[in-house]
Amino acid sequence: MQDIIQSLNWRCAVKRFDTNKKISDSDIETIKEILRLTPSAYGVQPWKFLIIKNKELRKKLREVSKSKAQVEESDIFIVFCSLRTLDEKYINKHLFNVSQTREIERATLDPYKEIILQSISSLPPQEYKAWAEKQVYIALGNLLTSLACMKIDACPLEAINKERYDEILWLKEKNLSSSVACAIWYRSKEDTYSLLKKVRFDTEELFEIIN
Amino acid sequence: MQDIIQSLNWRCAVKRFDTNKKISDSDIETIKEILRLTPSAYGVQPWKFLIIKNKELRKKLREVSKSKAQVEESDIFIVFCSLRTLDEKYINKHLFNVSQTREIERATLDPYKEIILQSISSLPPQEYKAWAEKQVYIALGNLLTSLACMKIDACPLEAINKERYDEILWLKEKNLSSSVACAIWYRSKEDTYSLLKKVRFDTEELFEIIN
Repeated sequence: MQDIIQSLNWRCAVKRFDTNKKISDSDIETIKEILRLTPSAYGVQPWKFLIIKNKELRKKLREVSKSKAQVEESDIFIVFCSLRTLDEKYINKHLFNVSQTREIERATLDPYKEIILQSISSLPPQEYKAWAEKQVYIALGNLLTSLACMKIDACPLEAINKERYDEILWLKEKNLSSSVACAIWYRSKEDTYSLLKKVRFDTEELFEIIN
Repeated sequence: MQDIIQSLNWRCAVKRFDTNKKISDSDIETIKEILRLTPSAYGVQPWKFLIIKNKELRKKLREVSKSKAQVEESDIFIVFCSLRTLDEKYINKHLFNVSQTREIERATLDPYKEIILQSISSLPPQEYKAWAEKQVYIALGNLLTSLACMKIDACPLEAINKERYDEILWLKEKNLSSSVACAIWYRSKEDTYSLLKKVRFDTEELFEIIN
């Protein structure tokens, strides 16, 4: 599959974008479906994706982000949020969805409820948060690779003031925490960054084969 | 790009595999290159990927993992590790690699060293660990999506006893921590799990458009 390798080599965190090109509505729908299909532990999907279109909000978020242009000028700006708590009510909602989708008796799923409650919901707050954010990063990895295959540029933003994001977007009230953001757009031909050679350690450095 | 959507719909965490089919050597090389090309914050690649071929080790790891068959019987079994610490020496190695790859003066990269030291290396241990594991999960998300495009099955394993993995694989001595594992193989036609309908919340549930 040289296509994927080529796509991954093509992608980079673009800093300047092409103001003449817009992400099409059908691509936006594809992007949403890509994120929706992200796998997660126990299939619980402990996340929500906010697509910020409001210009005033973008301006406010820009002020509390390191990569200014990406926040305010990108075609699409997504804030990846994790659930603050994964409670019994949420697990019930998830298992109801499982039973409906697969047309199986809800009661047969009770053991899963216990497993999720015991392994996730009962984690100490900081461990739960780390777990939930890792799930969100599967979504980020999925999106970055998928967009590369679509030749659409993405620039992930970790250096955001998450507490301020949470306040500006009223996330606490929605049981959400901002985890990471992603700007989506098309690269400008003048983006010098995308012309640089990709830097990675050698395969021998990154892999160990244990025979 | 309906191909990606189709691939993501096709993928699932397969539980039974086809004993007659093996991942080819060239696909293994592609898998390594996919992981190698994963993006990370500041491009620091705070990870190492262990491909466990040794049968004795697989047996030992099986005993401390929830998904037994995947660990011992999968064609490829990868343990995703994060760096325990990201020290000045490592940052220097990274920036040396940047300067060599891009043929630029090492000294011009000094500001990046400061940024990485201040934003990553100086994090309190638990926060650093959470950060490093999130980077590893970008690699996991990248791999899962890429393998789906290649129609190769993968089953991520979070329910592993990481402390025991670290001991069995001598990871502490290598400045590594096990973060997550992944079994790679081809699904069996008898895998009933892969015949089930995929369960996800609706788009309206997972997305919020803020106008």
